[in-house]
Amino acid sequence: MDFNQSYRSFVLALAQNQRIKHLVLTRGRKFARRFIAGDTLEEALQVVEALERDRIHAILDLLGEMVTSEAQARQFQREIIRLVQALGERPYPRYVALKLTQLGLDISEDLAFSLMEEILSEARQHDCFVRMDMEDSPRVDATLRMYRRLREAGFDNTGVVLQSYLKRTEQDLQALIPLKAPVRIVKGAYKEPPEVAFQDKRLVDAQFVLLCKKAMENGLYTAIASHDPQIIQEMKRWTAQMGIGPDRFEFQLLYGVRRDEQKKLAAEGYTVRAYVPYGTDWYPYFSRRIAERPENLLFVARSLIQG
Amino acid sequence: MDFNQSYRSFVLALAQNQRIKHLVLTRGRKFARRFIAGDTLEEALQVVEALERDRIHAILDLLGEMVTSEAQARQFQREIIRLVQALGERPYPRYVALKLTQLGLDISEDLAFSLMEEILSEARQHDCFVRMDMEDSPRVDATLRMYRRLREAGFDNTGVVLQSYLKRTEQDLQALIPLKAPVRIVKGAYKEPPEVAFQDKRLVDAQFVLLCKKAMENGLYTAIASHDPQIIQEMKRWTAQMGIGPDRFEFQLLYGVRRDEQKKLAAEGYTVRAYVPYGTDWYPYFSRRIAERPENLLFVARSLIQG
Repeated sequence: MDFNQSYRSFVLALAQNQRIKHLVLTRGRKFARRFIAGDTLEEALQVVEALERDRIHAILDLLGEMVTSEAQARQFQREIIRLVQALGERPYPRYVALKLTQLGLDISEDLAFSLMEEILSEARQHDCFVRMDMEDSPRVDATLRMYRRLREAGFDNTGVVLQSYLKRTEQDLQALIPLKAPVRIVKGAYKEPPEVAFQDKRLVDAQFVLLCKKAMENGLYTAIASHDPQIIQEMKRWTAQMGIGPDRFEFQLLYGVRRDEQKKLAAEGYTVRAYVPYGTDWYPYFSRRIAERPENLLFVARSLIQG
Repeated sequence: MDFNQSYRSFVLALAQNQRIKHLVLTRGRKFARRFIAGDTLEEALQVVEALERDRIHAILDLLGEMVTSEAQARQFQREIIRLVQALGERPYPRYVALKLTQLGLDISEDLAFSLMEEILSEARQHDCFVRMDMEDSPRVDATLRMYRRLREAGFDNTGVVLQSYLKRTEQDLQALIPLKAPVRIVKGAYKEPPEVAFQDKRLVDAQFVLLCKKAMENGLYTAIASHDPQIIQEMKRWTAQMGIGPDRFEFQLLYGVRRDEQKKLAAEGYTVRAYVPYGTDWYPYFSRRIAERPENLLFVARSLIQG
């Protein structure tokens, strides 16, 4: 296990601790605002306006995951539909992200499917794309099944995410090629055991590059979702070398991370989307952001001390 | 430029220094024997016997490169033919490697071509494969041209090497797919400028993995030539996952490097070939081996001091 891997395990384990959670929730708000647009949809829409001025588009994500009751799932779904409608009133590209466990995937796949159908019908009317984020490895099969089911039901305004740290992912990509599925490629941010995920960061990086190239070569519209400067550089070089135009891929980065790089890429003519989370349920998202970058922990520590 | 890159530049520049060269040639012999089978063909054949006892096959390489006269080229060619004939008398798999600049590529491509034709004719009679090593980037085009020309002349007992540090290499591989060319994939060991080669080791690794997978997926018989334990592990995992049998690839390592790993792979049923250099012209080969692994420099230093 290399440093990055043990660091991630450590932070994600720490995040489960109730006292830590309480401390972060009461005192970490200020810092959380670095990554999170605000508590409300209205605050999030202000962030969208600001990003659009820099030619960066937004992926709006109402924070929430792993619900344990149907009522919670339905509540989140109503909020997401409100989000889609609000975006529909604005002239910018419309794009939201959600998690299937936010819509009750763990309770029932049929429940999540029916809630997704309604969201996608509404989204289609507003020309809005809906990305289903990928969660931890036990939920990958269910998420991919959901995507196929939605496609069979006639929805093509949705897509999935592939995580390069999972050993299975190249085969998952292979299976998506005949569907011409739009994909987002990420490295992955959950704690996963060595049986299912590469523990050597170099192999995660290598598979990230391979998946992006393979997806684009096979004509899938590809969201390259990494902040890694060398990888972004390589994708720019490779697409140019292979004659793959900027209409066939885009860069996705997180709100609050490498803002200057985001502006620069947009100014160079690439499509750039920033993932903009909002809402009050920010703790798990926040923990994964800390877990994936040691530097972030220092900011948190300082912020907690200063209150 | 990362550490590995600057270290390599430093060592390869140092190796040009005449006093260093003199010192190494007079006092470094003992150390050089770690990587080099001996001065003579007979010594090399003894190494082959020893390797075969561990089920490791040999790639015999008569050291020599960058000749500046036709006479030298012809001399090397006679020696290589003698090598092929000697192998022909033995029951082991027959496999040699050579460099085109050893056969006068820099003097005339036609000269090198005619010398190669004779070598391949002889090799064909003895069921011997002849790998053309890849040299530095200015010679890549000529080497690939030579391969095509030899194939057009009816020789299929030869193949080329692709270096993952070169940015062009994925396209070179693409062009070799229709020819079903047997390839060896390496990272690359020359000093190359950022215009042509990745300077970030992670991208070299990523492209190495990608090239191996792409070659095998497309049915090219692939020699995976790396000592990197994580990469070897990943290739074993991936080929099993993809149902690519051990008849479609092999591992190649250098004589004297990770001997236990070589035995282990062979015992597991993989084809393993060790690259066995011999001859008196060992200085450039030796310099590249030092340049690619900082640990090796310490051995040399100790060996020079102890005489």
